[in-house]
Amino acid sequence: MEGREEDVRLGANMYRERQPIGTAAQTQDVKDYAEPPPAPLFEAGELSSWSFYRAGIAEFVATFLFLYITVLTVIGVVKSPTKCSTVGIQGISWAFGGMIFALVYCTAGISGGHINPAVTFGLFLARKLSLTRALFYMIMQCLGAICGAVVVKAFEKNQYEMRGGGANMVSSGYTKVEGLGAEIVGTFVLVYTVFSATDAKRSARDSHVPILAPLPIGFAVFLVHLATIPITGTGINPARSLGAALIYNKDQAWDDHWIFWVGPFIGAALAAIYHQIVIRAIPFKSK
Amino acid sequence: MEGREEDVRLGANMYRERQPIGTAAQTQDVKDYAEPPPAPLFEAGELSSWSFYRAGIAEFVATFLFLYITVLTVIGVVKSPTKCSTVGIQGISWAFGGMIFALVYCTAGISGGHINPAVTFGLFLARKLSLTRALFYMIMQCLGAICGAVVVKAFEKNQYEMRGGGANMVSSGYTKVEGLGAEIVGTFVLVYTVFSATDAKRSARDSHVPILAPLPIGFAVFLVHLATIPITGTGINPARSLGAALIYNKDQAWDDHWIFWVGPFIGAALAAIYHQIVIRAIPFKSK
Amino acid sequence: MEGREEDVRLGANMYRERQPIGTAAQTQDVKDYAEPPPAPLFEAGELSSWSFYRAGIAEFVATFLFLYITVLTVIGVVKSPTKCSTVGIQGISWAFGGMIFALVYCTAGISGGHINPAVTFGLFLARKLSLTRALFYMIMQCLGAICGAVVVKAFEKNQYEMRGGGANMVSSGYTKVEGLGAEIVGTFVLVYTVFSATDAKRSARDSHVPILAPLPIGFAVFLVHLATIPITGTGINPARSLGAALIYNKDQAWDDHWIFWVGPFIGAALAAIYHQIVIRAIPFKSK
Amino acid sequence: MEGREEDVRLGANMYRERQPIGTAAQTQDVKDYAEPPPAPLFEAGELSSWSFYRAGIAEFVATFLFLYITVLTVIGVVKSPTKCSTVGIQGISWAFGGMIFALVYCTAGISGGHINPAVTFGLFLARKLSLTRALFYMIMQCLGAICGAVVVKAFEKNQYEMRGGGANMVSSGYTKVEGLGAEIVGTFVLVYTVFSATDAKRSARDSHVPILAPLPIGFAVFLVHLATIPITGTGINPARSLGAALIYNKDQAWDDHWIFWVGPFIGAALAAIYHQIVIRAIPFKSK
Repeated sequence: MEGREEDVRLGANMYRERQPIGTAAQTQDVKDYAEPPPAPLFEAGELSSWSFYRAGIAEFVATFLFLYITVLTVIGVVKSPTKCSTVGIQGISWAFGGMIFALVYCTAGISGGHINPAVTFGLFLARKLSLTRALFYMIMQCLGAICGAVVVKAFEKNQYEMRGGGANMVSSGYTKVEGLGAEIVGTFVLVYTVFSATDAKRSARDSHVPILAPLPIGFAVFLVHLATIPITGTGINPARSLGAALIYNKDQAWDDHWIFWVGPFIGAALAAIYHQIVIRAIPFKSK
Repeated sequence: MEGREEDVRLGANMYRERQPIGTAAQTQDVKDYAEPPPAPLFEAGELSSWSFYRAGIAEFVATFLFLYITVLTVIGVVKSPTKCSTVGIQGISWAFGGMIFALVYCTAGISGGHINPAVTFGLFLARKLSLTRALFYMIMQCLGAICGAVVVKAFEKNQYEMRGGGANMVSSGYTKVEGLGAEIVGTFVLVYTVFSATDAKRSARDSHVPILAPLPIGFAVFLVHLATIPITGTGINPARSLGAALIYNKDQAWDDHWIFWVGPFIGAALAAIYHQIVIRAIPFKSK
Repeated sequence: MEGREEDVRLGANMYRERQPIGTAAQTQDVKDYAEPPPAPLFEAGELSSWSFYRAGIAEFVATFLFLYITVLTVIGVVKSPTKCSTVGIQGISWAFGGMIFALVYCTAGISGGHINPAVTFGLFLARKLSLTRALFYMIMQCLGAICGAVVVKAFEKNQYEMRGGGANMVSSGYTKVEGLGAEIVGTFVLVYTVFSATDAKRSARDSHVPILAPLPIGFAVFLVHLATIPITGTGINPARSLGAALIYNKDQAWDDHWIFWVGPFIGAALAAIYHQIVIRAIPFKSK
Repeated sequence: MEGREEDVRLGANMYRERQPIGTAAQTQDVKDYAEPPPAPLFEAGELSSWSFYRAGIAEFVATFLFLYITVLTVIGVVKSPTKCSTVGIQGISWAFGGMIFALVYCTAGISGGHINPAVTFGLFLARKLSLTRALFYMIMQCLGAICGAVVVKAFEKNQYEMRGGGANMVSSGYTKVEGLGAEIVGTFVLVYTVFSATDAKRSARDSHVPILAPLPIGFAVFLVHLATIPITGTGINPARSLGAALIYNKDQAWDDHWIFWVGPFIGAALAAIYHQIVIRAIPFKSK
């Protein structure tokens, strides 16, 4: 079953396994690095490999835990009459960012640690994974998010309905265009950070890049929440927005819901373009 | 006394010492890794080695310091009439998560850095340590926790009695089943993170895994506290719950106490099953 | 196009690429290190290389995102009638420090990750980059900061004008001299931390230095904000102060504006002197 | 001037330079490690080396910056009528812990990064540095702390006098014995963490130990502040307590001042004993 193990290495893992930092570099030229070939659109072999399904399960479980912890934290804060006796809005931001840190750390070696359809979309645009895998990940992320929200609702019942269920909506005082803009720039911050951690070229040069990787990715999520919770509640993750909206299931959550798909996907695409065209320009030129 | 030193290496340490990341990998094939054999149920040699007792002492001291800092922080917050002039509920979450981060860092090389019977139970199910060692660790953790709570009570006297003594109880508005569920999922998050740091296979591939290890483990504890303090006060550590309950010693603490043993042990078992059956499936298949 | 790639290595990158930690050290003597030669004042080759302009673009984008996230966080906090229902002043400090952490991580390999004219000035004084590059970076940083503030104003309109627009001013109760002093010491803390991460000599000896580097730099920014937000709102970054002041554009912002250029530049110069004369004294003596 | 450079290596640096992790390990047996010989009480050569005085200057500057940032943060919080519009008590804890993290990172390679007479005392008891060096460090730390408090008083004048000047005192409701106990256990947590980072034996085995080192040390300080600010304001650093008390200079600060020397020194001694006798017991036995 060597082939299956090999398949993991060729897969969608965010961190390059062909040239692990600080190990492969010693047997080869340190400054050298191999640009991995773009992933094919359809990779037939994937569908018959266990590691493909295992990666999907890991994405499902991670997104489930992500929604469970974060929406529970949100409900705990909003249901309290005084925010001072809760973990506060800052605590909510930590819950979102901290969970992404811990979950990227846990799943990076299994599935690449996306936990977010916008991240999957951005990495797909950069041809880091196949279309089959990208779609499979997105479906598993959405299913995981829905299940996570279901469990929170089971724990909080009335409060869940009364308190908005952690669903993303554009706050009063902001237009839909502003909400869309906040989602675009916010997702750009996240996916730009993810690309910086993915870059095989930089990894070969800067030894600090992959070791810290899950930490700045988690911080990016934390920081966007600090800034945009007052505007949209902060989506930047369509699975998280879908899971919360579907279980809350009231009109005000569905009216703005397109913003939390269109915004993150535009932001992820812009980050992919910025990284591939501007930051990685030399490989194109040196042909 | 070479044999004693060897015994440390064979013991319950969470981080593999046989193939330290970035060192052993250079003399062997980088992608290779050796699955350590499952620990025997009873290892007679352990009982006559100093390192076995030293590991128990380290677990005792770590759990003592854990309860001391965390329960003192809890009392400091709850006794204040206004939460704004304290470190707040978020500060309590940092105390629990931060202590686990620092203590796992300090004791990982001595005892494996469990500081929690649920972690010990999960790692025992995965056969990472012997039954003898697991039971010894759990006893030392409980004794350490009791002593930590005793010292806090000595400092805070009346306040300790009046303010619940940091004991875990299911909050009003939640059923016992919901409390149990919160403990199960919360402990799953923690023990799943611990297993991700233990995985010899991933360690050999991903250079960032063991270096950051104590940080995501601490963050997992922090995040579960952010989410479930409003529900149960957050146990996910039977030694912590026992220590606080025993020194507080009032009926309302004992009524729910079984939840803080059954919940964490079920959560740890689920995490062990998930990691060993789903994430680590290939070693089983490739036989 | 090999020459262009080489140019990146000779450029202003904060982290030495000639002797990456843990890799080059193995082929040479571990305790050895090569002091890079001081950068020339004018480096003609830079102006015709793509990597020079790419580094400028990276500084522009990073400073844009820095202002966007931080000023949006500031407006979100100040416009709320009760700080308890916001991320609070501590959340503002996290936004500034956390963004610097994430952005230094993302751009260190492209431009050196300055994102701050005072950092560029300090590194220029230590001859880590050419005058051409230093001026180009400062211009791009200021342009990025202005654009970031423009986007926040577009999102927040009235609130931006009413709430000070995140512009730095000396608070009532403090003299201009005190404000200037706070900026000098604050920038000293930041640039001193940056120099500690730049030191080729220490990097060769202490393996933990470059791996953590972006984290203490981000923390330095966070800590200075904790201490001096009550005094000046904390500048320690002339581009950030200029961007906020220009878009806010009221007299009270311009009256004190010189403090947020003079203070940071003096602080950066003192840090450069301290590091080059005191900490790095041996290279001077051993001639 | 090779001798002077050598002197740095033999000095008080907390992180072993003789066998840097991940480098020396490759040329020798990975599991091997050399216990450094105990530092002599008096090392005549030190007094004639520049690096000895440079280390003292680095301790002075670091302790100066430590007091400046932390006491300024304390005054900013206590002078506000409502804690909600400040960084809060949690922000004060971050200021103390975060500064220790950043300063240990910056000075570890120069002086060992003590910034605290209790840490110096603990490491001296373990014979990690000479008596001459220990006394010199303590004097420089106290001078730095005094200067830091002077600068804060210059910025805050009336507020400094009115608001306690960040001086440590036993809070009302606690006895002096309780205050002393809190200082002892708190300093034990800090110095125990420092010893875990110093251990040459563990460093050789666990690759994650020295890379993260400044982070758990900073967290230890943060955590002790979360727990004991309500009891004593948290000293665990005699230089910090002396600097604040001397500049505040009122009777209530001096009455309890002995607690903030005796407590930390007892705590540091207990941590040194615990680490050298229990954790490091094998080297003694294997003779």
